[in-house]
Amino acid sequence: MAESTQNCCDRLVVDPDARDDARMRLRSIRGHVDGVLRMLERDDVYCVDALKQIKAVQGALAKTGDLILRAHLKHHVVTAHQRGDEDAIVAELMDVLKYR
Amino acid sequence: MAESTQNCCDRLVVDPDARDDARMRLRSIRGHVDGVLRMLERDDVYCVDALKQIKAVQGALAKTGDLILRAHLKHHVVTAHQRGDEDAIVAELMDVLKYR
Amino acid sequence: MAESTQNCCDRLVVDPDARDDARMRLRSIRGHVDGVLRMLERDDVYCVDALKQIKAVQGALAKTGDLILRAHLKHHVVTAHQRGDEDAIVAELMDVLKYR
Amino acid sequence: MAESTQNCCDRLVVDPDARDDARMRLRSIRGHVDGVLRMLERDDVYCVDALKQIKAVQGALAKTGDLILRAHLKHHVVTAHQRGDEDAIVAELMDVLKYR
Repeated sequence: MAESTQNCCDRLVVDPDARDDARMRLRSIRGHVDGVLRMLERDDVYCVDALKQIKAVQGALAKTGDLILRAHLKHHVVTAHQRGDEDAIVAELMDVLKYR
Repeated sequence: MAESTQNCCDRLVVDPDARDDARMRLRSIRGHVDGVLRMLERDDVYCVDALKQIKAVQGALAKTGDLILRAHLKHHVVTAHQRGDEDAIVAELMDVLKYR
Repeated sequence: MAESTQNCCDRLVVDPDARDDARMRLRSIRGHVDGVLRMLERDDVYCVDALKQIKAVQGALAKTGDLILRAHLKHHVVTAHQRGDEDAIVAELMDVLKYR
Repeated sequence: MAESTQNCCDRLVVDPDARDDARMRLRSIRGHVDGVLRMLERDDVYCVDALKQIKAVQGALAKTGDLILRAHLKHHVVTAHQRGDEDAIVAELMDVLKYR
């Protein structure tokens, strides 16, 4: 709307295909979280079975993050020098990536 | 002794306090996943904002896993030698922990 | 020798077989680190090639950690209830494992 | 155009400052690995002490990887569109980053 923005790049929106893919995956992840919740309703649930399910959800989230990251690199990071926002885009990306 | 089971230890159920805590956290995580989904409905969502939210959900899941792991260690693993299922309990635990 | 100890369990030494295996792996890791250092002497080294090597060293370290963890679980954690140091052993183990 | 090469970008060398910083850190990491090796020479080393040291080395390696990654983003990725090697540079970067 106005000129000034909080972060460097909020005109840079998630690519529509990546956004569709991410939403599909997140709906599946929500269903998986519901499944773990139902599992934990039972008083006979075994610790390691719950841990395995949580690990599976983490893997699915990591893949969702990877696809958004790939889209961000492809659509925004590789063109940052041309736009002139390269310092900001690298700083904020490292903030998300570092040590993960 | 009785009906043999697939894993060593399915009589070893998640401690009730840990189970309550994990369910509370998972309900919050489900809400967080819903929030990321709503964020991704918008066509002006910025990649790095989505990545940050996914990273936050991963952190919350990791903490939930940690509390179940702690309960498993405290209630089941430290007593495994007495029950005699130590080989099985170590093998299946390493399967979940390794390389994570 | 004396009664008071810094941590609960410093009488609990690394199993000799695991110790031999870990040393063998760490010598190989040291060689790998030397290789990355030599790679970085060259002024024509490519970023991604260095990143791949660092990732490989991290994988080798993770496997070394896993074998010591497995030995710790097998030789010390599963017997903690009998020794009576279970609270301390779980607390310090979670400190190393959490969020990793 | 010229001699084709295996990866897209092997003319893209590590920035000299980042290379110096990485070498300094890797020399320190090598010393740390030596320290863990000496620790494991002793037959009274405690598992968790070894695990803590390995975790510390992993943290130092992760920081070294982060600084090379930051240099790669800053010096090579943000200019990829102008060079025209963006598809290759994104593909190989995701290969290193994914799921880490």
